[in-house]
Amino acid sequence: MIKNIKKQPAKPASRNAWAHRRSSHAASTQKQEKQGLKVIPFGGLEEVGRNMLALEYDDQILVVDMGFGFPDEDMPGIDYTIPNFQYLKENKHKIVGVFITHGHYDHIGAIPYVIHEIGNPTIYATPLTRGIILKRQDDFPHQPKLNIETVHKDKEETIVLGHFKVTPFHVNHNIPDSIGLAIQTPLGLVVHTCDFKFDFSPIADEPADLGRIVTLTSQGVFLLLSDSTGSEKPGQAPSEKEIFDNLGTIFEHAEGRIIAATFSSLIERVQQIIYLAERFDRKLVIEGYSMKNNVEICRSLGYLKIKKGTIILPEEALMLPPEKLVIMCTGAQGEDRAALMRITNGEHRYFKVEQGDTIIFSSSVVPGNERSVQYLTDSLARQGAKIFNYRMMDIHVSGHAYREDLKLLLNIVKPKFLMPIHGQFSMLRAHEEIAQLVGVQKENIVIASNGDIVEFTPEEGKIIGEVPANYIMVDGLGIGDVNEVVLRDRELLSKDGMFVIIAAIDAKTGKLKGVPNIISRGSIHLRESKELLDEMRGLIKRIVERTATPGYMSNWAHVKDNIREQVGSFLWKKLKRRPMVLPAIVEV
Amino acid sequence: MIKNIKKQPAKPASRNAWAHRRSSHAASTQKQEKQGLKVIPFGGLEEVGRNMLALEYDDQILVVDMGFGFPDEDMPGIDYTIPNFQYLKENKHKIVGVFITHGHYDHIGAIPYVIHEIGNPTIYATPLTRGIILKRQDDFPHQPKLNIETVHKDKEETIVLGHFKVTPFHVNHNIPDSIGLAIQTPLGLVVHTCDFKFDFSPIADEPADLGRIVTLTSQGVFLLLSDSTGSEKPGQAPSEKEIFDNLGTIFEHAEGRIIAATFSSLIERVQQIIYLAERFDRKLVIEGYSMKNNVEICRSLGYLKIKKGTIILPEEALMLPPEKLVIMCTGAQGEDRAALMRITNGEHRYFKVEQGDTIIFSSSVVPGNERSVQYLTDSLARQGAKIFNYRMMDIHVSGHAYREDLKLLLNIVKPKFLMPIHGQFSMLRAHEEIAQLVGVQKENIVIASNGDIVEFTPEEGKIIGEVPANYIMVDGLGIGDVNEVVLRDRELLSKDGMFVIIAAIDAKTGKLKGVPNIISRGSIHLRESKELLDEMRGLIKRIVERTATPGYMSNWAHVKDNIREQVGSFLWKKLKRRPMVLPAIVEV
Repeated sequence: MIKNIKKQPAKPASRNAWAHRRSSHAASTQKQEKQGLKVIPFGGLEEVGRNMLALEYDDQILVVDMGFGFPDEDMPGIDYTIPNFQYLKENKHKIVGVFITHGHYDHIGAIPYVIHEIGNPTIYATPLTRGIILKRQDDFPHQPKLNIETVHKDKEETIVLGHFKVTPFHVNHNIPDSIGLAIQTPLGLVVHTCDFKFDFSPIADEPADLGRIVTLTSQGVFLLLSDSTGSEKPGQAPSEKEIFDNLGTIFEHAEGRIIAATFSSLIERVQQIIYLAERFDRKLVIEGYSMKNNVEICRSLGYLKIKKGTIILPEEALMLPPEKLVIMCTGAQGEDRAALMRITNGEHRYFKVEQGDTIIFSSSVVPGNERSVQYLTDSLARQGAKIFNYRMMDIHVSGHAYREDLKLLLNIVKPKFLMPIHGQFSMLRAHEEIAQLVGVQKENIVIASNGDIVEFTPEEGKIIGEVPANYIMVDGLGIGDVNEVVLRDRELLSKDGMFVIIAAIDAKTGKLKGVPNIISRGSIHLRESKELLDEMRGLIKRIVERTATPGYMSNWAHVKDNIREQVGSFLWKKLKRRPMVLPAIVEV
Repeated sequence: MIKNIKKQPAKPASRNAWAHRRSSHAASTQKQEKQGLKVIPFGGLEEVGRNMLALEYDDQILVVDMGFGFPDEDMPGIDYTIPNFQYLKENKHKIVGVFITHGHYDHIGAIPYVIHEIGNPTIYATPLTRGIILKRQDDFPHQPKLNIETVHKDKEETIVLGHFKVTPFHVNHNIPDSIGLAIQTPLGLVVHTCDFKFDFSPIADEPADLGRIVTLTSQGVFLLLSDSTGSEKPGQAPSEKEIFDNLGTIFEHAEGRIIAATFSSLIERVQQIIYLAERFDRKLVIEGYSMKNNVEICRSLGYLKIKKGTIILPEEALMLPPEKLVIMCTGAQGEDRAALMRITNGEHRYFKVEQGDTIIFSSSVVPGNERSVQYLTDSLARQGAKIFNYRMMDIHVSGHAYREDLKLLLNIVKPKFLMPIHGQFSMLRAHEEIAQLVGVQKENIVIASNGDIVEFTPEEGKIIGEVPANYIMVDGLGIGDVNEVVLRDRELLSKDGMFVIIAAIDAKTGKLKGVPNIISRGSIHLRESKELLDEMRGLIKRIVERTATPGYMSNWAHVKDNIREQVGSFLWKKLKRRPMVLPAIVEV
């Protein structure tokens, strides 16, 4: 399962030239820092998630977003990945502020790990985003207080941070209070769309503020940084109104209980389910820690409209007939410990699946989760539930602009330069193709990698250097202490397990004392492998006899090498497996 | 990463009643064995792959298919899974024959592991299927010879095996020589479609023999066993002609080299690529071990039409201009060591990706491979290749009947009873719904699980018992020796790694001798964790001093328990990780 492909393959030219790149960057910085505008993506390119980007002009840096990413399947045990912030740490005196564009974890999740390492600069966020950031800080009680300022998407505010004059504008996503940024710089206007789509009939939001975008960009746009996540999808992203109507049809025909699962961060959908519960005279129970948290924050800040009495406690729900109840919960991805899985497995404190239940998966399936979701679906179907998912009906839409939406934006904004951001490399490339169709010059489009220093001058945009941008892995309390070696060991251990061989050797005679102790995990079932173990002990004895020189201590390494090698070959011959073999010698 | 869901959850009624089920089965067998026809699926239900099924009447058993499945992501290190064959082993004297319906590994892959354990019964297969089975046996040189007979899909043959009179009929799939089976039994005709679709304009095959199916089933069908894999897909499966035309468009516009990746078992598509190479005057290189093998078998048996001179060696290909070359290869799933990955990573002996290459992924993405395929795609795009996949154009179609195709079959066959086979539980359920639309009575449809004994009498079909049907895991040379405990250990090791603690204790004094030896893998980077290790050694010393009783040997277990527990807590407190802690004590 170890993937051969590097997550972020360096471009061929720079593959072997880290030192060179560093020095050329230093050189170019000296020469050009007064004239060029630098854009440095630390994450979010060549991937979906882990978004963090900096604009640098003169000696000032503006940071946009600070998110985490979810680990790949070749990172076992890792909780999540955050962007490498070494460059920001080294240049923290230059940072003039941090803008967070919306409250999703791939945009806010790295804050507790990064913000204090880079001098605790002021964070600017809309009220809901701010609320979610502050709630998250509760999980990090020992950290100093955040400096966080509120900005508003509808007040025509401009925040002046040195060279950067930042005006937020409203875009649609699937969480309210999402903003894009119009950033006036000495070189001209930079527009950062962040994650966005246009929805002209959203349910829990206002339509994206097209008028404001037109006004803000009417003087010409120097550079557009724009979301590429949906650039491979033809047409326009459907409106949430369509999703809402389809969900309504399901509610209309459901005869028993409804269990609606979605992402807890998908506030737009959460509101739709609340509205539908109220319309169809059902009460609503909320299950799942993150779902409860988010509903609470959104309600208290006025971003969710919930009638009094709609939400009830699980104890109360148990008294209601099934046709009067909706359970809204987490777990649409088949996550092990989420509410829907516990309900399905009969492990939930209050609820289990019942004949006649209608289960709604109002979400996409995140790549990698297909099998878990299939097993969840099967298990629900087996228990007599009726299941609806996005393959059967349009009951989910992504929060990202599709191809025609991207064309619309490009037509309005008419940027001189374009740098596609947010998305796999193939998505950045697709975005480039779209932009050319709309009239952006090919040479004015820069496809960059995480860590690239892209410099824009009035004449051109180009990659002039690199900063470190590898994944920083978070595992429990450890940030970055799990490295490639540790990960590779985890992979190896998970494939064929390991054998520890403890040999007690008499230092004077070089002879084995007693029988070698063999500990094995993840390789074979020891109790059923007595014969194999006996053979192995015999082999170890012979190895020690042949290689241990009495009284000559320093050759233990040699004995261990021999055990490792020969026991390894023995196991390969016997089992065609390659468990890790770890010899230890105790002198007695 | 350990999934909570059981792969094949038993139905609630039978969850705790294995002993009971076994005895009730024995009882029912005695009572009814003269009258009922039993169908026992050992695999292939509640999953895609690992197909094996038995029909049993009186004291005779007919086996259909013997395939393997690919492991789930919670089975690290496992090569593949095969069906549990314990029931067949115990009843091998009853087996009258084995029919293999086509040459895909999910239908033939378990033969080398199972056939000799169940008395080496005669295998019946069409010529191509037979060729592929025999080629595979080369990998198992120490096995006795297979008894294998050839049947023909177009010769109106009927093979009489005791109570069962089997007539194969031709269906489409994506490998030639695929058959369904019309099986005359004392209770009436049983139709087993196996994997099938209808294609009225295939490229490398004849259309499914609808006329034969009509004739064979015109006297009425007692029971239909039918493929459910495509039952959730609306409409009809597109014809291979459409795929061929779309591939033709890509060939027509490709200016440089074409690299076409597909499954090596997808012989239909392989033929299309060969035809297109010839039509557009390109030479063809074949890369990938399984691709070369399959082309060779199919060509020698006359199932692939290849003009002389079309296929060339890689050395010759290097001399050709790019627009004259097609490389047909394995690796469309992003598999690590497959040809396409090696070409992409610059590790291939002859080829690397070049600017202007056209890459065709003529395959779907198997669930679980999405990320690997995305990384492969990105890496290719980064090197300047133009990529086509099934999301952009219809250049792949599955080999399974869609909803309308299933309706067509049901309308022709008009079975009294239906037992949906092949597919996830949700697909079996969807197939049930389709059948009801077409007029099959709900009570005459049996949705079973792997291992169920389904008995059909003229009056009814019902589940009357169960046989063992858990996954048998194949890992290297081991068949079934990796059990749940070993897998769980692999999962745990892969998450947080392990610490082995070796304490040498003086048996007389109960005191530690020297410093404890700590071996760790997959947990932390030891060299950077000196402080942690020192603390841990101090802790171990204290534990030994507190708990080891001098001269009293039998409490080493107690000492070890204490080390395991307290070092575990220590690491949790320090790292918020739970590595496996394995203490060993050496008496000195």
